[in-house]
Amino acid sequence: MIVVMKMGATQEMVDRMARRIEEMGLKAHIIVGTERTVIAAVGEKRNGERETLESCEEVDKVVPILAPYKVASRETRPEPTCVTSHQLQIGNGHVGVIAGPCSVESAEQLLGTAQAVKSAGATGLRGGAFKPRTSPYAFQGLKEEGLKILAAAREATGLAVVTEVMTPGHVEMLAKYADVLQIGARNMQNYHLLQAVGDAGMPVLLKRGPSATIDEFLLAAEYILDRGNSQVVLCERGVRTFETHTRFTLPLATVPYLHERTHLPVIIDPSHGTGIASLVPPMAAAAVAAGCDGLMVEVHPDPSKALSDGAQSLTPEAFAEMMKTCRTVAEALGKELG
Amino acid sequence: MIVVMKMGATQEMVDRMARRIEEMGLKAHIIVGTERTVIAAVGEKRNGERETLESCEEVDKVVPILAPYKVASRETRPEPTCVTSHQLQIGNGHVGVIAGPCSVESAEQLLGTAQAVKSAGATGLRGGAFKPRTSPYAFQGLKEEGLKILAAAREATGLAVVTEVMTPGHVEMLAKYADVLQIGARNMQNYHLLQAVGDAGMPVLLKRGPSATIDEFLLAAEYILDRGNSQVVLCERGVRTFETHTRFTLPLATVPYLHERTHLPVIIDPSHGTGIASLVPPMAAAAVAAGCDGLMVEVHPDPSKALSDGAQSLTPEAFAEMMKTCRTVAEALGKELG
Amino acid sequence: MIVVMKMGATQEMVDRMARRIEEMGLKAHIIVGTERTVIAAVGEKRNGERETLESCEEVDKVVPILAPYKVASRETRPEPTCVTSHQLQIGNGHVGVIAGPCSVESAEQLLGTAQAVKSAGATGLRGGAFKPRTSPYAFQGLKEEGLKILAAAREATGLAVVTEVMTPGHVEMLAKYADVLQIGARNMQNYHLLQAVGDAGMPVLLKRGPSATIDEFLLAAEYILDRGNSQVVLCERGVRTFETHTRFTLPLATVPYLHERTHLPVIIDPSHGTGIASLVPPMAAAAVAAGCDGLMVEVHPDPSKALSDGAQSLTPEAFAEMMKTCRTVAEALGKELG
Amino acid sequence: MIVVMKMGATQEMVDRMARRIEEMGLKAHIIVGTERTVIAAVGEKRNGERETLESCEEVDKVVPILAPYKVASRETRPEPTCVTSHQLQIGNGHVGVIAGPCSVESAEQLLGTAQAVKSAGATGLRGGAFKPRTSPYAFQGLKEEGLKILAAAREATGLAVVTEVMTPGHVEMLAKYADVLQIGARNMQNYHLLQAVGDAGMPVLLKRGPSATIDEFLLAAEYILDRGNSQVVLCERGVRTFETHTRFTLPLATVPYLHERTHLPVIIDPSHGTGIASLVPPMAAAAVAAGCDGLMVEVHPDPSKALSDGAQSLTPEAFAEMMKTCRTVAEALGKELG
Repeated sequence: MIVVMKMGATQEMVDRMARRIEEMGLKAHIIVGTERTVIAAVGEKRNGERETLESCEEVDKVVPILAPYKVASRETRPEPTCVTSHQLQIGNGHVGVIAGPCSVESAEQLLGTAQAVKSAGATGLRGGAFKPRTSPYAFQGLKEEGLKILAAAREATGLAVVTEVMTPGHVEMLAKYADVLQIGARNMQNYHLLQAVGDAGMPVLLKRGPSATIDEFLLAAEYILDRGNSQVVLCERGVRTFETHTRFTLPLATVPYLHERTHLPVIIDPSHGTGIASLVPPMAAAAVAAGCDGLMVEVHPDPSKALSDGAQSLTPEAFAEMMKTCRTVAEALGKELG
Repeated sequence: MIVVMKMGATQEMVDRMARRIEEMGLKAHIIVGTERTVIAAVGEKRNGERETLESCEEVDKVVPILAPYKVASRETRPEPTCVTSHQLQIGNGHVGVIAGPCSVESAEQLLGTAQAVKSAGATGLRGGAFKPRTSPYAFQGLKEEGLKILAAAREATGLAVVTEVMTPGHVEMLAKYADVLQIGARNMQNYHLLQAVGDAGMPVLLKRGPSATIDEFLLAAEYILDRGNSQVVLCERGVRTFETHTRFTLPLATVPYLHERTHLPVIIDPSHGTGIASLVPPMAAAAVAAGCDGLMVEVHPDPSKALSDGAQSLTPEAFAEMMKTCRTVAEALGKELG
Repeated sequence: MIVVMKMGATQEMVDRMARRIEEMGLKAHIIVGTERTVIAAVGEKRNGERETLESCEEVDKVVPILAPYKVASRETRPEPTCVTSHQLQIGNGHVGVIAGPCSVESAEQLLGTAQAVKSAGATGLRGGAFKPRTSPYAFQGLKEEGLKILAAAREATGLAVVTEVMTPGHVEMLAKYADVLQIGARNMQNYHLLQAVGDAGMPVLLKRGPSATIDEFLLAAEYILDRGNSQVVLCERGVRTFETHTRFTLPLATVPYLHERTHLPVIIDPSHGTGIASLVPPMAAAAVAAGCDGLMVEVHPDPSKALSDGAQSLTPEAFAEMMKTCRTVAEALGKELG
Repeated sequence: MIVVMKMGATQEMVDRMARRIEEMGLKAHIIVGTERTVIAAVGEKRNGERETLESCEEVDKVVPILAPYKVASRETRPEPTCVTSHQLQIGNGHVGVIAGPCSVESAEQLLGTAQAVKSAGATGLRGGAFKPRTSPYAFQGLKEEGLKILAAAREATGLAVVTEVMTPGHVEMLAKYADVLQIGARNMQNYHLLQAVGDAGMPVLLKRGPSATIDEFLLAAEYILDRGNSQVVLCERGVRTFETHTRFTLPLATVPYLHERTHLPVIIDPSHGTGIASLVPPMAAAAVAAGCDGLMVEVHPDPSKALSDGAQSLTPEAFAEMMKTCRTVAEALGKELG
């Protein structure tokens, strides 16, 4: 940690700050520059020292050297983590593909979609039973009924079921039906929920919040890892920027950047990331080319009748077409899709 | 709602879409332009028609005419809502001032701060007992012990206690000690939590999420209002932008804009909004001049020893100075501060 | 154009507004909704009617139906434009590759780089002679001397020279040496410069400004097209968002989105788009997979000695490696790279 | 400057980097931390050392300690700069008010507006003769004819004329008629233009670009100051964020933040900053309360007939009302308005 003193800080102030740093159990190195004095504080423990030092009046700013996360970091664990469930493999040369409708609407809708995406090569099935909706007046999901339909589809197809859990009180119930618990973007910093899924001890798919920094994203993962659950999949689904022509702005550089920082696998959701069905296939192919470990794609038998997210859902035919291109790209890079 | 057809849509497509709109119980008006055809759909019920129509292949986009929120809107209730608790009055010519430390750290720290902010004119006391922290390694609050300290400070000072609730399972416990339940920015779209505080039937202070649009903010309030709880205070605390010199970017235009759209009172948190103690007083004065109904300010007896948010906390002396300026501005505008 | 009247607008106000619209030469269709009245104004000419109507007090907002650009639009010209110069082909199944150093530093540096990128498959050569630098104290380029070096490299290699022009007064000089005039991101809305390169009648590479919307980007192109110059290449080089781990956020969805809206070819600059050399190759491959018509990549013989942008420059070896992957992806999609 | 070495950098790499730093004329202090080694490089000259070091492969990142600007900085010149012209005083206890139409449309329109804003207390007159318009099809200004009308209005009223210059070739002509040359937001990084107005030796009003960081803003000012012209006024006019309900997001914290960093005066443009006439007066009052040195406000005799920016223009009556409130706030803070 580098403590930058304010312009004009006196020798006495610098000495006082150095003592303060030493009292925190760190070692202080004073470096007198031509215009500023800085103190390097060695031995940081990531437990709030930075905030404390930043609060001191004589301090201009504190620059952290270490990443704030630890267990998630590549430095702690150099080999990549691979998360698997049933046929779904995410990481380790496999680009796992999770597809299905935004919401579970009926047994027919779900089973039909599951069979279609399976034959196109998907290995995971998505479908919301509890839906976080921006408006209280929108369809909120079929709830436990929806979970039962998902479990039945798994029985029929072998696809791993990925579904969202919205609140700690539901984790136990969801865990009975689902294979992978999804934390939605809106809940990325719902810490009690992160701890609850951490305790559940099953694979977790953590979506990046639309304005979360990479550090915040990895610290959210750290909440889950910190409970002893290492099966965490990171999902980039777009960030909120000034761009409004797409629903969110999908920054694929997240994939190689995270791969340098963390051992956790990284998947891309081009459906939420663009919000426009016609943009999903090119962005899915681009995500594979960028090196992602998986895709999460919304597919609906009749998007214009979907109870949610129809505008970004592919038809089963368009999805099968998309899979062909993605498979070609994956193979060109020596990876296996699905 | 205006349905814009794609370039080159045939008469048949337009007719089919018009029938579709009529089947939804809306009235369709077809308008043939020089380059595009649009269909005005009259009678919208805000329950997902827009999404459905947007999913149709022949449709380029759907432009909503009505705001998506209803109970929160000024059109539903023209007179401004005023929220009060003990001495705290927010709205109706009163600029309520809620001040106190980021976290409750000890009985001494809290009570001392409470007395100091009260004598400077505050009418509400803030203090976190359950702290949502970005890192799992940071101080998480004193929990129920902290709540007891807050309640004791209310007994001693008469200040209304405002404190954050993080998860539905805690609402009942918090309600025993607090006067106003705060929903933090990270939880603005934690819908189960919004419903739980809605059901609690006591004043709620709802913070805007750092990347929430105004519509999303008001729809979050709508989740609370929808449970029959009308005592909702909206709090702007800064949004996340490309600017990094301040912790967040604090858009004060939110105040007059929301006043035009909703009857709910609007307060400003210049502490989180800037993240830098020296910027808090000018932004507090600016917020009052912009017409806000209240302020929420972090004050700590010794910011350099604070367990959280020290860099943005005012000393009691700086807070008293800030209050003097704010009172002058409030009075110049015919309002009462505190 | 849809004119949304304010809540509570009287019949008289609506009639007055309709007359106003008719006076502008448009046709007005009044649609009385359950909560709002809107007027559809048919016959828009894109010359400021929207702004005028938006200024009227009784009007809540005006929603445009037509895109604000015309010549750039796919509706005006359905077949894609292909821009070529020497060996460089951008569009029409060719993914043109423009590579070279950020700045021309010396004849040796440039010629060496030109030969290296050529043998790896590049068909265009980039290199700045006039450098727009954020700081007045940074290296500003070799100026005309740099242009001569670029022209010599073209003679030696056959690569088309792409170089930036910063001000209208330089267009004539630059046109003598360069094959493609580049408009940098900072100058995307420098309208006199756009007009000057429009008048120059040679290929123009227009970079998107870091906070330009797609409409603004296409309107900037429209300034060039409007002078009768149709050889315009659009270049996405990243937008400014809250993300700071990369220099900019690179939204590849721009590629398919623009392809739906405009006939102009779209290329990607992954060097500025990420600012980090190790992220350039995966993002280049992703750009090709997303369907881009070209790439613009910074290559320097010794990035650690570059006078500018070293951190995002590839070595010739890394560039050759990147080209191999990109070629595999391009071929998988039935396209030719370089 | 702090050079953070990559994880796992060997002693040899560290030594090589230290030698490299010393070769640049800086002094290197090696600090070996528990997880990382950093090298403090003392003696930075702000001429590109940072970029060079960041390009080295063994380096993770380089953290600057000094601000990149120098002449603009408060450390170089502690006393605030005051810019004056005719009756206009910006800084030094004066809140200068520049008002007038977006564009000069006719002699009658301009003179009438000038007289109205003067009697309400304005001391500067704005009005565009050369208009940078997003669309090539929009009204581009009256050009030199407009400048003559502006000069005539100055003769009649004594108001200082502030008008925008768009390209270096126009500076000489503009300088004949105007008192303050305005650089628009789109041209904030048009370096040839900045140098040209620097050379003109007359007051310059520099608008912040919509996605410019504070460092970039001050470096743009530095381009002007570097030519020996110290009469620079900084104008915050809103930044581009995900918020779309206002035209831009107006961050008033820019005012106190810049006051801590630079001696240059800071004014606010609430018209562009909000884009909505009804939000201008509260934001103008807020800007005064935040401590700004001036305001720039669009006023039009009949906003609904304005050729540009009508939606954000105040009527003369609304402007007079706004001035009353702003004056009360200014006086409450011990400042003089106008």
